[in-house]
Amino acid sequence: MRREFSGTCSYVRNCWYVAGWDYEVPQDTLFQRTIIEESILLYRTSSGKVVALDNKCCHRHAPLSAGRKEDDCVRCMYHGLKYDQEGRCIEIPGQTHIPANVRVRSYPVVERKRWIWIWMGNPDEADPTLIPDTFSLQDPAWRMQPGYLRYDANHLLIADNLLDFSHLSYVHEGSLGGTSAIAAARANLERLPRGVRLTRRISNSVAAPYHVRLGMPEGVPVDRWWIYDYTVPGILLLDSGVQPTAGPVAAGLRFHSCQAVTPENGRSTHYFFTQAHGFALHDAQVTRMLFQSVVAAFEEDRRMIEAQQQLIDTTPGSEMVGLPMDNALAVYRQIYQRMLGAEAQAVSAN
Amino acid sequence: MRREFSGTCSYVRNCWYVAGWDYEVPQDTLFQRTIIEESILLYRTSSGKVVALDNKCCHRHAPLSAGRKEDDCVRCMYHGLKYDQEGRCIEIPGQTHIPANVRVRSYPVVERKRWIWIWMGNPDEADPTLIPDTFSLQDPAWRMQPGYLRYDANHLLIADNLLDFSHLSYVHEGSLGGTSAIAAARANLERLPRGVRLTRRISNSVAAPYHVRLGMPEGVPVDRWWIYDYTVPGILLLDSGVQPTAGPVAAGLRFHSCQAVTPENGRSTHYFFTQAHGFALHDAQVTRMLFQSVVAAFEEDRRMIEAQQQLIDTTPGSEMVGLPMDNALAVYRQIYQRMLGAEAQAVSAN
Amino acid sequence: MRREFSGTCSYVRNCWYVAGWDYEVPQDTLFQRTIIEESILLYRTSSGKVVALDNKCCHRHAPLSAGRKEDDCVRCMYHGLKYDQEGRCIEIPGQTHIPANVRVRSYPVVERKRWIWIWMGNPDEADPTLIPDTFSLQDPAWRMQPGYLRYDANHLLIADNLLDFSHLSYVHEGSLGGTSAIAAARANLERLPRGVRLTRRISNSVAAPYHVRLGMPEGVPVDRWWIYDYTVPGILLLDSGVQPTAGPVAAGLRFHSCQAVTPENGRSTHYFFTQAHGFALHDAQVTRMLFQSVVAAFEEDRRMIEAQQQLIDTTPGSEMVGLPMDNALAVYRQIYQRMLGAEAQAVSAN
Repeated sequence: MRREFSGTCSYVRNCWYVAGWDYEVPQDTLFQRTIIEESILLYRTSSGKVVALDNKCCHRHAPLSAGRKEDDCVRCMYHGLKYDQEGRCIEIPGQTHIPANVRVRSYPVVERKRWIWIWMGNPDEADPTLIPDTFSLQDPAWRMQPGYLRYDANHLLIADNLLDFSHLSYVHEGSLGGTSAIAAARANLERLPRGVRLTRRISNSVAAPYHVRLGMPEGVPVDRWWIYDYTVPGILLLDSGVQPTAGPVAAGLRFHSCQAVTPENGRSTHYFFTQAHGFALHDAQVTRMLFQSVVAAFEEDRRMIEAQQQLIDTTPGSEMVGLPMDNALAVYRQIYQRMLGAEAQAVSAN
Repeated sequence: MRREFSGTCSYVRNCWYVAGWDYEVPQDTLFQRTIIEESILLYRTSSGKVVALDNKCCHRHAPLSAGRKEDDCVRCMYHGLKYDQEGRCIEIPGQTHIPANVRVRSYPVVERKRWIWIWMGNPDEADPTLIPDTFSLQDPAWRMQPGYLRYDANHLLIADNLLDFSHLSYVHEGSLGGTSAIAAARANLERLPRGVRLTRRISNSVAAPYHVRLGMPEGVPVDRWWIYDYTVPGILLLDSGVQPTAGPVAAGLRFHSCQAVTPENGRSTHYFFTQAHGFALHDAQVTRMLFQSVVAAFEEDRRMIEAQQQLIDTTPGSEMVGLPMDNALAVYRQIYQRMLGAEAQAVSAN
Repeated sequence: MRREFSGTCSYVRNCWYVAGWDYEVPQDTLFQRTIIEESILLYRTSSGKVVALDNKCCHRHAPLSAGRKEDDCVRCMYHGLKYDQEGRCIEIPGQTHIPANVRVRSYPVVERKRWIWIWMGNPDEADPTLIPDTFSLQDPAWRMQPGYLRYDANHLLIADNLLDFSHLSYVHEGSLGGTSAIAAARANLERLPRGVRLTRRISNSVAAPYHVRLGMPEGVPVDRWWIYDYTVPGILLLDSGVQPTAGPVAAGLRFHSCQAVTPENGRSTHYFFTQAHGFALHDAQVTRMLFQSVVAAFEEDRRMIEAQQQLIDTTPGSEMVGLPMDNALAVYRQIYQRMLGAEAQAVSAN
């Protein structure tokens, strides 16, 4: 048995979601992705600008993504309605007058540094300056390989995971982690306007296996750090690294990671990620090895989180017991709930 | 996520449904098919007459279709109850008295011109003269090959499709359709007692690819017509054809198509169909080619309609926008709803 | 369509359930099984004692079965919490104080004669003398091979099946059954404190195919008997056999069967079983052949019961018609409902 679950949730809408990697929306094709339970059509105009429309033809709800791109427009291939990049219907076969309500919603979109961002809420509030600076995705001083995973789990279970790195010692014992020292070191927490900043440093520890593969001498005591912001709706920007406790800073390895958690629905989540390196810039093998290391580690997370989701879904409800290590995730969940509440209030006030 | 859907619907019951092709119920086997959420057992008596019984043994609800045919009766192979062709239990192992309530429902059945028709409503109203004349299924002047598809979609979405041939220009652009002229030509609509009659003619158009394969000269202007009835619960009888605009009638090609849409449940539908030809009667290759052409086209419909159903099920509810091209399907849906309402009233009056 | 079903049911809790075969929980591994909708972790301490804990880490509901056995304890491999065999948390990484509510439920467990029994109700009432005597599972006078099947069906449909052997004549016509004489012979019913005892004897009948394979002369009239208890939550102990009607008792074959029906949830059930023989003790081929015979027969049951469950789930509700042959299953269902009611009352009285 699976207990039935509708998958329907509430989501913060007034924020920028990562809709995809730039390469997922090539010129001249139609791309579909479901974001917070809405089916979105993405395509590029002849000038390369990304367009995001409600994928549901307003006529009979056929998917526009099964349609045809015609210049900068899209034609529904069920009954032939043609929409422009604003979502306005500009052609109805056999009919000259086009009523104003024959249109689909269009969404604000910004393409910036390899990611396509979409604003799911009130378009008037779509302020591009709210987009976090994912500099390492496109910068000559960094190298990375784009990653994507799909989770069969609620986005907040993934946020929980990313907001408590004490799991590194256990889930990633044989990959990213290495010692229980990470779990033992409590992170410092700062509140941000739309999320949290976490700083965790451990000293006199041991290098992780992939550090050794990258040239850190084995057995030499190292310092490690993780400093990151996690902001609504699920954007993580992480500065991390390792250096010999006794050695010069130059002997260390510095990483930058961009991660984005975009709910598909209440039980399925898109996960975009990178692990960029600020050293060995001309060694493609380092880029590849780092990418493979994080993919392997994120698969460890995924197995654990999907098992957690499944157990929650199939066994009787019981309360989770809060622990000090949950501090950051509890604060983030409060922030998320507060924003949800504010949006619900704004809607009912209109 | 799939949004949960019970699949439970209301259906018009007092009408003849197509339960299957004659060959699907051979002598001496038990055949099961679910129709409007009821599991039906179909078999033939020694005289060849088709029997339709509730497939659920009234005792412990085991399927009779997993049982055994014994002469003109069926024995449940769970505990051995034996039913006659009226659904009366005539044997209970270990027991001599058989109470009158030990029986399963039997349904009126008519086998006519290759199709087996079943009446799902009040048996007293099962009037065989209500069965539409599917003459081309069995007539020396016509040739056809039997077709069947199963849709993962609600039967009314299929009715919508069959009631608006403007989709021919788009869904079937490369197969049955050919030009946007079909969508541009509005159909004439007549109301029938239990459905609608649609007449659509286009002149000075081009032949469809399969017409050319059947011998129509390419590039010569043609007239095309589609005249059909669509009646509850989903029976389509279509007279269609093509002829040179300037040529004699004899140079044309005439087709007749019988199609039946039988709901399995609210999200699954049986679809029986043919495309008969009234020419080249002794050329089996024409029959085969025509069959393959409509199968390919109906698969195009199926992909579109199943995608439409899935999009409706997984994204938030929104209203469809009505257009003039929906005239026939809107009228049909009204007729269907009116019949549903009348049946509900008749039930509550009893 | 499948009608949606939550799978959630009420179960009698104050009773011993069979959680598994002894060999399913080897030393040094973690074993998970869902019983009445609760996910249970089973493992052995260094002394070999079986421990049963709630599989859900109380912290973030990760499965302990995805964790690590450490001595007699288990560590959750999400955030590192460590539990002892009583379910008490004895280590939280990065934290010295362990609050008393950081614990998981532990269940009373008894391992006896190859089966692991678990008490799902109030631990204070877990009286091991309530465990039925499954002597033939481990006795020099008997031989058997352990069996397990999983049913996609509610446990009470399986109980129904086991409480009415008249189905032997039909479901097992070609395997265990043989004649309609079994269905014709009504069983004698006695009520037990927690179930029923059934006695059925037929005389002057014919041997089943597998009896003949075991050496009973073909065509010679035989007597057969089945005497069994079926007690909550679904434990069947069956003494059965066959002997020549005219011959000495010694010429007969005596069997003993232990069967346990353990609900996983409302639509899925574990089924543990044996068919032990009290003759040919040193002939492993007899053990194997008997095992294969009952597996084949139980697969016949499974096909029927799963088809019954599916038909019930996908077609409109209707009442089952009671027959005299249902006597034992009706009495058992009454007993089960009475116990359910008593437990509900005891819970609300607290």
